[in-house]
Amino acid sequence: MDDNRTELERLGEFGLIDRLADGVKIYHESTIKGIGDDAAVIDAGDKYMLLTTDTLVENVHFNLMYTPLKHLGYKSAIVNFSDIYAMNGDVRQIVVSIAMSNRFSLEAVEEIYDGIKKACDLYQVDLVGGDTTSSTSGLIITITAVGEVAKDEIVYRSGGKEKELLVVTGNLGAAFMGLQVLERERQIYLENPAIQPALEGVDYILERQLKPEARKDVIHYLKSLGVKPTSMIDVSDGLASEVLHLCKAGNLGCALYDEKIPVDQETFRVAREFNLDPTTCALNGGEDYELLFPSNKLITIK
Amino acid sequence: MDDNRTELERLGEFGLIDRLADGVKIYHESTIKGIGDDAAVIDAGDKYMLLTTDTLVENVHFNLMYTPLKHLGYKSAIVNFSDIYAMNGDVRQIVVSIAMSNRFSLEAVEEIYDGIKKACDLYQVDLVGGDTTSSTSGLIITITAVGEVAKDEIVYRSGGKEKELLVVTGNLGAAFMGLQVLERERQIYLENPAIQPALEGVDYILERQLKPEARKDVIHYLKSLGVKPTSMIDVSDGLASEVLHLCKAGNLGCALYDEKIPVDQETFRVAREFNLDPTTCALNGGEDYELLFPSNKLITIK
Repeated sequence: MDDNRTELERLGEFGLIDRLADGVKIYHESTIKGIGDDAAVIDAGDKYMLLTTDTLVENVHFNLMYTPLKHLGYKSAIVNFSDIYAMNGDVRQIVVSIAMSNRFSLEAVEEIYDGIKKACDLYQVDLVGGDTTSSTSGLIITITAVGEVAKDEIVYRSGGKEKELLVVTGNLGAAFMGLQVLERERQIYLENPAIQPALEGVDYILERQLKPEARKDVIHYLKSLGVKPTSMIDVSDGLASEVLHLCKAGNLGCALYDEKIPVDQETFRVAREFNLDPTTCALNGGEDYELLFPSNKLITIK
Repeated sequence: MDDNRTELERLGEFGLIDRLADGVKIYHESTIKGIGDDAAVIDAGDKYMLLTTDTLVENVHFNLMYTPLKHLGYKSAIVNFSDIYAMNGDVRQIVVSIAMSNRFSLEAVEEIYDGIKKACDLYQVDLVGGDTTSSTSGLIITITAVGEVAKDEIVYRSGGKEKELLVVTGNLGAAFMGLQVLERERQIYLENPAIQPALEGVDYILERQLKPEARKDVIHYLKSLGVKPTSMIDVSDGLASEVLHLCKAGNLGCALYDEKIPVDQETFRVAREFNLDPTTCALNGGEDYELLFPSNKLITIK
């Protein structure tokens, strides 16, 4: 083995980010927050601008065997919106970069864009630019989202206080279980293409995987209640990872109660079918795009 | 052939952009200019914010056989900076998305980032975030740049007037000829790895290909002269394509004089070696990252 070669998996995603952020200099006073939160924060006069980017790669983040292109476009927008909401901001604009091989037709690209436009229409976001290039293999979608937030409304990962309750919106683990079902059916199909996929009674978890939503509603609901969380993060890598980020950023500890972790009945049932622990799915599954934040009062959120 | 399938090459890049932009709705008054210029323009109170994104794909935009990773990182930043300067703005922040297979080590990713950081240091740009993911094959770098410009200083592709002189900075065709030399040497190497590459006397064109610069200096020089072009674009796809964009956007025509098109001596000589017409290289080569704008007075720019 080459002595000068360090395998990327040895560091993990967050170790890598720390290494790459090393030596980065900040030249502009307008850069309020660089690497290390859900979005970068830029001073734009009387408000803050938020900036975040996320990439979805074929056969890493999605498999086209069971991912409709329109859903894929929708999801690639949503994952970025979620990062802006996690800063308590609103999404304003996106730019879209798509790299794809010539096995994709114009109609295929239009399907992806239809999904992106659908997400933009529903969340009121302006698609303002992008770049479409060839790739020698595979499909890669990178979206960068711009958001804005009043300066006194911004919420970082840091800022949590002692004795707060940790609140998570919606339920967890569903997108992960949806993926397990899709992967199982893919394997069965590869072994015998004549067998029809068994997708009855799993509508909810499939939708959570293939067409997730971001919690714009929660941000606006909290504002209507006059509640501003002390800290916040979106649940993209699983509850365990996000709790750790909030605790680290706030220099706090935290106790999680198994029976309080919200898991949908369908997720629970299918997890049991797969001989998986539903709590483990909620902790480590990821792709939930729910919001996690501490609160000092009890709030009812669907 | 499938009747519902339209090959992407049938439309070309700009036909594709028009098709994808179709049906895009704008919800926010802050979106001043969406798809269709070098960068999107967003109202940020007392100034405009600029937003642009560009993707470089392995074996489409670069070949790692002759592209040092540090140069690649540098170039991937520069191509974005150039789009911001083309709006007469200054670059402030970037976010970086890299997708790469596990054949790349940590050291390789750090090399790419070193190049990006080098560009950021030289052009005074803040690297504020990004996303690093796996890919099943190949390396893809997407950078999104944020710029800013005073509202009365912004320059669009449209706005050109009759009887102006068209000015281009620097010289054209060099990056394209650099690429031809690198491709020739790659072919020779593939046929016989024992032969050393013949890269004497081509330093300038290789540097233009592998480590281009963006014309921040020109933007600041024009400001110091009190000159604000009526319209502007950067030369990324070749002079012919960019002249067409300016003319279309301004509803104008234009005459180009062969002997006035600036071609460096080295470019000229190597083009002749390859039996290529130097003017054709300047018109259609691309990757020059020079600025093209009309002027109503004579300006001396290196």
